[in-house]
Amino acid sequence: MSLRSRLEAGETLFTAWSGVPDALTVEIIAGQGFDAVALDMQHGGHHEDSVLRGIVPILNARKHAIVRIPVGRFDMASRALDFGAEAVIAPMINSVADARAFAASMKYPPLGERSWGPTYAFPRHGQGDFAAWLAESNKRTLAFAMIETRAAIDALDGILETPGIDGVFVGPSDLSIAWTRGKTVNTALEDMMEAIADIARRAQQANKLRAIFVVDPRMAGRYTKMGFQLFATASEPMLIARGAESILSAARQSLSAK
Amino acid sequence: MSLRSRLEAGETLFTAWSGVPDALTVEIIAGQGFDAVALDMQHGGHHEDSVLRGIVPILNARKHAIVRIPVGRFDMASRALDFGAEAVIAPMINSVADARAFAASMKYPPLGERSWGPTYAFPRHGQGDFAAWLAESNKRTLAFAMIETRAAIDALDGILETPGIDGVFVGPSDLSIAWTRGKTVNTALEDMMEAIADIARRAQQANKLRAIFVVDPRMAGRYTKMGFQLFATASEPMLIARGAESILSAARQSLSAK
Amino acid sequence: MSLRSRLEAGETLFTAWSGVPDALTVEIIAGQGFDAVALDMQHGGHHEDSVLRGIVPILNARKHAIVRIPVGRFDMASRALDFGAEAVIAPMINSVADARAFAASMKYPPLGERSWGPTYAFPRHGQGDFAAWLAESNKRTLAFAMIETRAAIDALDGILETPGIDGVFVGPSDLSIAWTRGKTVNTALEDMMEAIADIARRAQQANKLRAIFVVDPRMAGRYTKMGFQLFATASEPMLIARGAESILSAARQSLSAK
Amino acid sequence: MSLRSRLEAGETLFTAWSGVPDALTVEIIAGQGFDAVALDMQHGGHHEDSVLRGIVPILNARKHAIVRIPVGRFDMASRALDFGAEAVIAPMINSVADARAFAASMKYPPLGERSWGPTYAFPRHGQGDFAAWLAESNKRTLAFAMIETRAAIDALDGILETPGIDGVFVGPSDLSIAWTRGKTVNTALEDMMEAIADIARRAQQANKLRAIFVVDPRMAGRYTKMGFQLFATASEPMLIARGAESILSAARQSLSAK
Amino acid sequence: MSLRSRLEAGETLFTAWSGVPDALTVEIIAGQGFDAVALDMQHGGHHEDSVLRGIVPILNARKHAIVRIPVGRFDMASRALDFGAEAVIAPMINSVADARAFAASMKYPPLGERSWGPTYAFPRHGQGDFAAWLAESNKRTLAFAMIETRAAIDALDGILETPGIDGVFVGPSDLSIAWTRGKTVNTALEDMMEAIADIARRAQQANKLRAIFVVDPRMAGRYTKMGFQLFATASEPMLIARGAESILSAARQSLSAK
Amino acid sequence: MSLRSRLEAGETLFTAWSGVPDALTVEIIAGQGFDAVALDMQHGGHHEDSVLRGIVPILNARKHAIVRIPVGRFDMASRALDFGAEAVIAPMINSVADARAFAASMKYPPLGERSWGPTYAFPRHGQGDFAAWLAESNKRTLAFAMIETRAAIDALDGILETPGIDGVFVGPSDLSIAWTRGKTVNTALEDMMEAIADIARRAQQANKLRAIFVVDPRMAGRYTKMGFQLFATASEPMLIARGAESILSAARQSLSAK
Repeated sequence: MSLRSRLEAGETLFTAWSGVPDALTVEIIAGQGFDAVALDMQHGGHHEDSVLRGIVPILNARKHAIVRIPVGRFDMASRALDFGAEAVIAPMINSVADARAFAASMKYPPLGERSWGPTYAFPRHGQGDFAAWLAESNKRTLAFAMIETRAAIDALDGILETPGIDGVFVGPSDLSIAWTRGKTVNTALEDMMEAIADIARRAQQANKLRAIFVVDPRMAGRYTKMGFQLFATASEPMLIARGAESILSAARQSLSAK
Repeated sequence: MSLRSRLEAGETLFTAWSGVPDALTVEIIAGQGFDAVALDMQHGGHHEDSVLRGIVPILNARKHAIVRIPVGRFDMASRALDFGAEAVIAPMINSVADARAFAASMKYPPLGERSWGPTYAFPRHGQGDFAAWLAESNKRTLAFAMIETRAAIDALDGILETPGIDGVFVGPSDLSIAWTRGKTVNTALEDMMEAIADIARRAQQANKLRAIFVVDPRMAGRYTKMGFQLFATASEPMLIARGAESILSAARQSLSAK
Repeated sequence: MSLRSRLEAGETLFTAWSGVPDALTVEIIAGQGFDAVALDMQHGGHHEDSVLRGIVPILNARKHAIVRIPVGRFDMASRALDFGAEAVIAPMINSVADARAFAASMKYPPLGERSWGPTYAFPRHGQGDFAAWLAESNKRTLAFAMIETRAAIDALDGILETPGIDGVFVGPSDLSIAWTRGKTVNTALEDMMEAIADIARRAQQANKLRAIFVVDPRMAGRYTKMGFQLFATASEPMLIARGAESILSAARQSLSAK
Repeated sequence: MSLRSRLEAGETLFTAWSGVPDALTVEIIAGQGFDAVALDMQHGGHHEDSVLRGIVPILNARKHAIVRIPVGRFDMASRALDFGAEAVIAPMINSVADARAFAASMKYPPLGERSWGPTYAFPRHGQGDFAAWLAESNKRTLAFAMIETRAAIDALDGILETPGIDGVFVGPSDLSIAWTRGKTVNTALEDMMEAIADIARRAQQANKLRAIFVVDPRMAGRYTKMGFQLFATASEPMLIARGAESILSAARQSLSAK
Repeated sequence: MSLRSRLEAGETLFTAWSGVPDALTVEIIAGQGFDAVALDMQHGGHHEDSVLRGIVPILNARKHAIVRIPVGRFDMASRALDFGAEAVIAPMINSVADARAFAASMKYPPLGERSWGPTYAFPRHGQGDFAAWLAESNKRTLAFAMIETRAAIDALDGILETPGIDGVFVGPSDLSIAWTRGKTVNTALEDMMEAIADIARRAQQANKLRAIFVVDPRMAGRYTKMGFQLFATASEPMLIARGAESILSAARQSLSAK
Repeated sequence: MSLRSRLEAGETLFTAWSGVPDALTVEIIAGQGFDAVALDMQHGGHHEDSVLRGIVPILNARKHAIVRIPVGRFDMASRALDFGAEAVIAPMINSVADARAFAASMKYPPLGERSWGPTYAFPRHGQGDFAAWLAESNKRTLAFAMIETRAAIDALDGILETPGIDGVFVGPSDLSIAWTRGKTVNTALEDMMEAIADIARRAQQANKLRAIFVVDPRMAGRYTKMGFQLFATASEPMLIARGAESILSAARQSLSAK
């Protein structure tokens, strides 16, 4: 079942967020209870090679493969799809022009300008023939525009109307920097919450998907009420730090218990 | 302060256990609250290249670098030291002959037969001159013999007497297979505990260091009473699984709490 | 003998088309009967590192090294030349502005704006001195503009007139999508053939080189009559699938023959 | 269905033979019509890292993963299984002592001395619990002893009787060198055929599996009559050379046909 | 002490210039007497992965980590900082628009538009908290604009006034090509020296840092009088060629001395 | 011309000594004035993958490719030859048994037990057919036994008589440790010189090649008088340290010169 189908069917989904460009680390993450794994090429360490190789264990674990590209690297949006990704997240979509450029790289003509060449994606997903693949691709693959600046909020309606944009993805860290005009970074900023809720509301009205990064996983409940459906969380440093604390505190407790 | 000094001073230490052959993953683990990181070449995926590269972030984090070699690969024991490791764990040291071969690879003459060539280790530790390095190396680097079969227990006194063997490292999974003659694998096997305690006791009497793998970190307390000082735990799958459960359960709880 | 000299002398040449970013795979391909090997960074998996390393076995086999860059990644066109490539293919050159940007990245001043730094290329080709290398580089290295959209065909004359553009490279898959306005992908589309022939004709009139991707190698004869000189074919999946079919069918036939 | 089950059920199976240590190349091969892919660490370029990573695309393609270890590297036999391989081929098993050492590394106690630690294999195969995995492992994983010298033929009955040896794998190139006492290398040597048939016959009588490398795939029929069940063939150079010849000859024919 | 502090305090500093994308080679260079190591992504072979990994040994050696990005790849300027670089050098800053785009990628709002996500940089530098890191980052990290064309010289005052540009970095090879309108490449071109001095002078007046590449290290003295403070030199080919000549000539002299 | 021919013709040859497992670093070294490049797997960082890839630039530079294997890793001696190396150096050949095991891995039957499979070597050297390759291989490839302990000196005559051993390679660092019974490491130890000369003398009498590692290149002259022909020197740390000193001292002199 595709990521789009599941989200449109109303499921609440969680994606892990990988920044270590290594397929074996991705494999371990893909084996956990997440619905998807996102490979981060913006702030994480993923690159062309690690995305190409990292998608295999995600698909082998029957999870959805998502890629976040670096700012403005729409050449890579096309490549991520060619490598077998199901969704691409583009950071800093701050204007309708940004949205159009992103959509162009994500969708085959006439909707966009994506070039043909699913060398890896086609055998990895192993279905149909080339013509069928072309016919369904624009629908099956998802373009998430990151909304994380005041400019983006101002341009939101235009971004949402851009053909080929399938959803929004809120980046609350950057939004908090924008919100405080560079004063701080704080995803829990209370006076930013209404703006976040408004993004979800307008996206839902425009019939677009809603995703957000949750630094604190306990925020998922509040965001879900706003209309968010897909939650990104759990980078390797988060996962490993929590795991280490859990193991070491159990061990140290047993020491002092003696 | 060296690993030997800390253990001889009576500290209880924890080493993480890395099986993902990637220096960036090792870097994240080295940033957690462990005292050391062990790179596992036997059951883990580490290999020559990943050990050579993985030791750098461990040293950069001011942690002790440990390597477990594959069964019988004593060529690699020497290489691990040449790359900058402070301790090497050799699996399946089942006889005095095994212990001698291991010690020979770990110690410079006349104690052993280790060949000279600290190409990487010397600049990585950045101290003294070549002659000084030679003089102190046999003391500074630690050879841990794994005791994990009935044969090893039978040969234990001879192993402990072998010059150049600095300590024992108990492998409770394999020991449980040996204990049950292949019936099961169970590190919590109650009737194996006395044998484990006896290994620690005899090692302590022989003035050798005592280390053990703890599958369940809560066992550390019990083992410490037996005389164990160094606990190995926390492979990537353990760390990431615990981290993922913690994050996902927090997130899902917040969903249902709405 | 340079690729330019051979093409200008009227030779018909074949380049393999590598999408596996691994120098050993490239080495095996370079050992076959192709005249050149193209490393594909657009739909294939090649990236900076694999191009840098993959060019060595191509040169060692005395073949021409070609690189296809991702859409709009003209920074990489310069880098491919710095790494020792002899020709660069740029996809989606749809306007004179695209052609100018591509040419600027490929040619040293005053023809273009390529920056100096042939760190790898110079020792790899091992000839002359820096001043001689500068003097001959603009002539020796080839810029192929991909013509694969209706916009590109409309702008063709301007593209052909752009100083620094050495030839055209037709992408028949994308052209077929453009031709059918997204209805299908079919390089054998009969009513597209005249357009393809026209591209070759106009390029030849403008004294520019003509190259094309042949999905079905039997098309080479027809294309050569149109004026095409350089044929790209034979990606790893094509090569390996044909090889596997040949071996398995021989083996299976021998089984049933028993 | 396991490789053992299929072979015991009388299927004739083909394994490709990969020598390029790159998971993407393995992925393409695993997508062809072979039943299995063997990763060659003896004469091929595979190593610890490439085996660890290369098994994933094989399993993802639902094929059997086989590893050939270097001569005498039984530490790697255990590791290959820990990484998820289903069968291991050991070259130069020339005596009962060789066979015993190989079997010891492949089977858990009490049959052998394999050490516990299926860190990668367990999640990759994703079935049962640890105790169940232990119970079935010795049966599920296959140890193939290569018979390729006169000494091995002399010791064949003892090798076949060694507990833990599941089958023989004939290496006809080395056998031909042995056969001619170093005069030549020729897998088609007619006067060696009876010896090869005899190996199959004795293995079958001992209820052991029979595999062989076929340089010329058309030999499969003849070998199958001798009792061989599993045929290794199709290394990357073979696959790519056949593919290149097929593509280039089709293209060149079309040129001259004009 | 930060690179900025040292330069502002009047120190003359030397950075090595790495073009081999391998962390172990970087490690050896970082162990020499340079103050910093620059990883070159424009003409050198460095790429996302090698920068991410190469910064660790530089920091471990307590040196400053610098990255030169490819032309126009401002996405990578942000990433280099996220990976822990202290300074970024951008080639071909030929206009105020170029300078603004570069500065935007280097500085957090409100000064620039850099996105938040110091996943690697934060633990690698290991200081403060997120808010403190945000507050100091724009000051601590340095943006060097390369001045290497006539257009850049014409636009110099505007470039120097661009908020977020911390200094200039002169590329004398390209400048000499520009200077001679493509006639030659010669960093010792006497009639270019006044222009270079003028760049330093104007930068100093604008209170900006001055850096330059020195092909011939003996030029450092002359440049330092012009006001340059940071000298880039010593790529791997330079280092290794000088080293090889020194070793081989010593050896060969000893041969003939016999 | 083969390494053997040149040495037998009386040439004095120099090999660089690479310990950085990266083909690009090897490529730069291979471009210098050495006659050969040795890839060190014992104390250096080379491993299967880096040897397989590193031989290509050495051959491309028309230099001799040499590999030093780890202690006792004779499986790797065969593999190095299969990958295209022309000579293998085995450390710690301390007895006739060691020499026999090494020779067995280096030579095809009937001289040794090397297994057939020159998958990479054959196309890399590109000559003859398989039968011709087999016929000439034992002569063309060179087995150098390292003599670096008192035991080795005691067993020297037997080692020299072992069929398949082509020469000796003296390791003066280890020999100095042996000589002083672990007191120090000092390749210039005067009272060890006669022993070294004696090794050369006896090797020459036995018609075997003589090689030695020179830590101080000025020793070459003295060693050449003893009969040594092949000198190993110039690891990356040596090359880069000398290069850095040369560049930095030139630069710093120019600063103060003013």
